[in-house]
Amino acid sequence: MTDVVLVVNTGSSSIKVATYALVDPEEPLWKGEIDGIGRTPTYESRSGKAPGPQQAVPSEFARGHRSLIHWLLERLRQEQPTLKVAAAGHRVVHGGRRFSAPALVTETVLEELHGLSALAPSHQPHNLAGIQAVADTWPEIPQVACFDTAFHRSQPRVAQLFALPRWLSDEGVLRYGFHGLSYEYIASVLPDYLGTRAEGRIVVAHLGHGASLCALRDRHSIATSMGFTALDGLVMGKRCGALDPGVVLHLLRDRGMSMQQVDALLSHESGLLGVSGISDDMRDLLESDDPHAREAIELFVYRALSQLGALVAQLGGLDGLVFTAGIGEHSPEIRRRLVAGLAWLGASLDPAANAAGASCISSPTSALPVHVIATDEEGVIARHTCRLTQAMTLS
Amino acid sequence: MTDVVLVVNTGSSSIKVATYALVDPEEPLWKGEIDGIGRTPTYESRSGKAPGPQQAVPSEFARGHRSLIHWLLERLRQEQPTLKVAAAGHRVVHGGRRFSAPALVTETVLEELHGLSALAPSHQPHNLAGIQAVADTWPEIPQVACFDTAFHRSQPRVAQLFALPRWLSDEGVLRYGFHGLSYEYIASVLPDYLGTRAEGRIVVAHLGHGASLCALRDRHSIATSMGFTALDGLVMGKRCGALDPGVVLHLLRDRGMSMQQVDALLSHESGLLGVSGISDDMRDLLESDDPHAREAIELFVYRALSQLGALVAQLGGLDGLVFTAGIGEHSPEIRRRLVAGLAWLGASLDPAANAAGASCISSPTSALPVHVIATDEEGVIARHTCRLTQAMTLS
Repeated sequence: MTDVVLVVNTGSSSIKVATYALVDPEEPLWKGEIDGIGRTPTYESRSGKAPGPQQAVPSEFARGHRSLIHWLLERLRQEQPTLKVAAAGHRVVHGGRRFSAPALVTETVLEELHGLSALAPSHQPHNLAGIQAVADTWPEIPQVACFDTAFHRSQPRVAQLFALPRWLSDEGVLRYGFHGLSYEYIASVLPDYLGTRAEGRIVVAHLGHGASLCALRDRHSIATSMGFTALDGLVMGKRCGALDPGVVLHLLRDRGMSMQQVDALLSHESGLLGVSGISDDMRDLLESDDPHAREAIELFVYRALSQLGALVAQLGGLDGLVFTAGIGEHSPEIRRRLVAGLAWLGASLDPAANAAGASCISSPTSALPVHVIATDEEGVIARHTCRLTQAMTLS
Repeated sequence: MTDVVLVVNTGSSSIKVATYALVDPEEPLWKGEIDGIGRTPTYESRSGKAPGPQQAVPSEFARGHRSLIHWLLERLRQEQPTLKVAAAGHRVVHGGRRFSAPALVTETVLEELHGLSALAPSHQPHNLAGIQAVADTWPEIPQVACFDTAFHRSQPRVAQLFALPRWLSDEGVLRYGFHGLSYEYIASVLPDYLGTRAEGRIVVAHLGHGASLCALRDRHSIATSMGFTALDGLVMGKRCGALDPGVVLHLLRDRGMSMQQVDALLSHESGLLGVSGISDDMRDLLESDDPHAREAIELFVYRALSQLGALVAQLGGLDGLVFTAGIGEHSPEIRRRLVAGLAWLGASLDPAANAAGASCISSPTSALPVHVIATDEEGVIARHTCRLTQAMTLS
């Protein structure tokens, strides 16, 4: 038997689990994923490089996240009978003001995390369902919650404040920021790519279906584009990004939309999908000749450049740029446009390196290095979980 | 008798009128103002430099904007019997998508402007009440509407778009921007201060109780910080500025606030007032030792620097910076902090010139000139009105 750490990443439409050796949690030994939750959930696993066959999840388990995770954990037991789950680590979207680092899950912690559900109603409850499902299956193992907000708690207070009445800030209506596990990973490997320059003024662009930017100084987050929720900031697949709050009031007051309709509009019908009318997937838009698709891409780039400028102003200049996540890692065209838009800072691209998806894609004459780094949120969770549970064993 | 142009600027809490000679509308001949509408309206006028005594407005006229303007126009007739009002020009906050220049007011135009009231419910109806009151008093004179949005109609479409579903953009939910009459004035005099550099990459900071930034290239607006409404962008006296739309949904859904409460919160209880808990007036905060006052100022500066960075990114660099409006013209301390925050672009201040409120406040070694220019929205309206009504007479 091999002792492993189980990593659980529960989203609204997918559940991903992975196992890592407890003694050296570098690469996952086994991964399983359920996708298409809410439609027709399908399951796929991989051990090593080759994925197994896709299969439908039996309908009696498709009633909700908790039963889906139970079924998924049962798959792990059957497919990998030699792995012994010794600890579990979870991605939890919201750690509020208190959690600036991963936390061992106790009754008290769990209660506190449930209390934060209102701050992330479409993610937090699913994350906590994952913790519960693991406790149902292996009641005795320690569990660790790793927060998407924690990495940004190092920001100065002024970066976290809205210009709202003080009592709202005091009650936690703040700019938390998200994608913190991704930024933490990038910050941890940055010296491998940039040497001592890694400690300088860096912007990391986490561009996926959800997207944000983070400004790093001394590899700590000093500002980020997402705010209180994951709606704010960049144009995303289906989310609007930065929006005049007066628009929300207008939709409710002058157009008679309900709160639920506005929420659905901004969260699921906006972004690349809303502007293009075609797709929420950047790959589809880049392949399309439709002028609306072109406009959606243009807006994505325009807004990303604006928000980059805002972060550069807070950093007081720029020493390096990193692209990561789906679009950031796999779209040379979006990277090309963004670097072109930073010519005023002296950034320039090596087109061949960019097309090839090389690690360094800036030209030798570029005033700042531009890198593509694959992010690894699951790896960060695995390592935190090992560290925290081993510390527990030692103490 | 001297033929004059009457300029009317009707806000929610004040009404300002001024008269300019029709033949050479440079300086106002007479100004009258009612302030404190909604509380105890008071009246003051000035002819030349010295203001007349303040007096209370008789309560029977304080029922609404239209009767207040009637009373104010009657003051003009009594105080200045030798002035003959030959035309009137009005500040109108919203010209929607159609009006990219001032317009002679006709029945059709008036109807169209009423149709835009939903886009600026706390300003547009008052502006249109001013047009009506003038028509009641002098039915025969031509009137001109000058729009706060018009100057920004030159922006590329991508600067005007939200990442919302296309049907909303098609119906006019766009980033219009405001303070256009102020920016138009600054753009018109910019060559007097900057020479040929005026055609370059300029940011104008209109910092008053309402505040915004505008990026100029070739003296045309290419981007601005306000959006669909005047709530968006910078921290203002009482307005929140940029805010995660998810916060609006949170206040309604999770805190059970009504739409009216949220509207009042964001428009009248936020900004400098909300953060400081002390005052919506920057002068009060700068004089205060209260840490909350300091935090409000810090947030004002932080956000202004972020949004400056966003505009600089769209301009691709910066050739000049202009401060205008109340805070911009009269607060050396805020100017000092903002220029210090632009050191990364090579900006540096001449402290003595800044303290003295000189026109050019950058040091000789500054990479870009920084100027203070008093704005003149009424003058812009007067000149547009003369031009348009004279064109009418000639045709």
